[in-house]
Amino acid sequence: MKIAVVGAGALGLYYGALLQKSGEDLHFLLRRDYQAITNHGLKVFSINGDFSLPRVKGYRSPHEIGPVDMVLVGLKTFANSQYADLIAPLLHETTQIVTLQNGLGNEEALAKLFGPKRVIGGVAFLCSNRGEPGEVHHLGAGRIIIGDYQPHDRQRLETLAARFTAAGIECHISDDLKRARWEKLVWNIPFNGLCALLLQPVNLVLAQPACRALVQELMLEVIRAANAQGLVQPIPESYAASMLAFTDAMGEYRPSMQIDREEGRQLEIEAIFRIPLTYGAQQGIAMPRVEMLATLLEQATGTVP
Amino acid sequence: MKIAVVGAGALGLYYGALLQKSGEDLHFLLRRDYQAITNHGLKVFSINGDFSLPRVKGYRSPHEIGPVDMVLVGLKTFANSQYADLIAPLLHETTQIVTLQNGLGNEEALAKLFGPKRVIGGVAFLCSNRGEPGEVHHLGAGRIIIGDYQPHDRQRLETLAARFTAAGIECHISDDLKRARWEKLVWNIPFNGLCALLLQPVNLVLAQPACRALVQELMLEVIRAANAQGLVQPIPESYAASMLAFTDAMGEYRPSMQIDREEGRQLEIEAIFRIPLTYGAQQGIAMPRVEMLATLLEQATGTVP
Repeated sequence: MKIAVVGAGALGLYYGALLQKSGEDLHFLLRRDYQAITNHGLKVFSINGDFSLPRVKGYRSPHEIGPVDMVLVGLKTFANSQYADLIAPLLHETTQIVTLQNGLGNEEALAKLFGPKRVIGGVAFLCSNRGEPGEVHHLGAGRIIIGDYQPHDRQRLETLAARFTAAGIECHISDDLKRARWEKLVWNIPFNGLCALLLQPVNLVLAQPACRALVQELMLEVIRAANAQGLVQPIPESYAASMLAFTDAMGEYRPSMQIDREEGRQLEIEAIFRIPLTYGAQQGIAMPRVEMLATLLEQATGTVP
Repeated sequence: MKIAVVGAGALGLYYGALLQKSGEDLHFLLRRDYQAITNHGLKVFSINGDFSLPRVKGYRSPHEIGPVDMVLVGLKTFANSQYADLIAPLLHETTQIVTLQNGLGNEEALAKLFGPKRVIGGVAFLCSNRGEPGEVHHLGAGRIIIGDYQPHDRQRLETLAARFTAAGIECHISDDLKRARWEKLVWNIPFNGLCALLLQPVNLVLAQPACRALVQELMLEVIRAANAQGLVQPIPESYAASMLAFTDAMGEYRPSMQIDREEGRQLEIEAIFRIPLTYGAQQGIAMPRVEMLATLLEQATGTVP
């Protein structure tokens, strides 16, 4: 299968490398790593075993790639305004677009530009980061939950899941993509937000009772907003307690947004905070603490929404 | 009148110096500035004109001072656990205790220890800081609103106000000390809190619409909690808009709590946030944003409440 990776950061490089290794025909749209990867290939340092791909097809423009069967989107969400330029040249009649991006609003924006039928959403639980140009580090997890943006073709999802599985990527199908996205937000909003604001890892944020209670209140606000979105099955409020227990086991973990802020990169405040706040408000659900956290993050980083 | 100043920081030194200059018999309880002040006196650099007091009575212990007619309390509120040790030796039968400290809970704690009749509260609107030992800088304002903790003796308040006025301190009497304290919190909670958390002056905090709206929401939470405390006259919600306009005129002003954090000093989170939150909760008023701000400040500064 001819696959293009658009947004070849840590996530795009990691999943793309696994797919190429399993025999798929991968084409990476590159910027920073173009020279390194086209000259020397890609090195993956993974908790599941390191490997190298000595020959990798890298490009500077999607026009050089041309139409593909699947576009894997790993862009940072603040670059979504480039969807049309980057993706349109890659499409033929039945090209699937699989977005593994963070937060909300990505499938909607892709569907608006390219029609809803092509669009498959994927929620990635992956801990990875980029090293030197031409290197990617896989530090933990890697599971993906995929689902149609609009219920469309279960067979297509099963074929896709089989392809990921064959590449060594744990992949589950969800009949309720929206719920999977919101479930991830139940973790991402408090921990990415508070850790990035305070520049403290998750264990410090959970150590004091008042801040731990704040994490739980933020989670409950997200769950209430999620459950107003017409999910197939509501997220139980007990999900917050289980996410707290899950995070207690993570030790000094620094969420990606904290690392992004520490390294001076732009944060995905729009996709992870502002769009969920809008979807909540559209259903009459106020999220005062989530809104305050978004505002403080914007203010701390000089982000003008 | 024999007056002891307990907590001779910027506020205590400034008001004490003015009272001594006007002819009162001042006795300063000192720590950091003891050597400088007992040897060389006190220098006041003020927007109203600089002056020096070459001879100032400084002490290391309240026992050396003995009973006085008035105790002026300028302690940082996190030192309130020292009230008994520092103040008891200064009292005779009718000694007045005037607290000019920040936040809530000070009059209550003094009344509990020394009886309510002695206790007079003062809300100070003063911009001052300490310089080198033996120096104090008066940068702006200086007005005091005084009131009995329990309505007691109007004549006593008028005499006190006249004494302050004679010393060049603008002094008003309030029949509703509680309201004056809460009114100050309407400003102190959002601006001290947000500026100290974000390490940004007031003009930056007000520049973006979302953060400006957050300031207003915080003010409204404080006003609602205030108006549940049985004030003589409620604080109108329009007070928030007038405080915003007032603050717009302040330019790059850094609130004292921001300066305290920047200089690594302990913050008055208990008196300015936690006690008002408790008083609000006792009347059934939730203040979710104020509570979140308190928690974030504690978390950012490693303060265990």
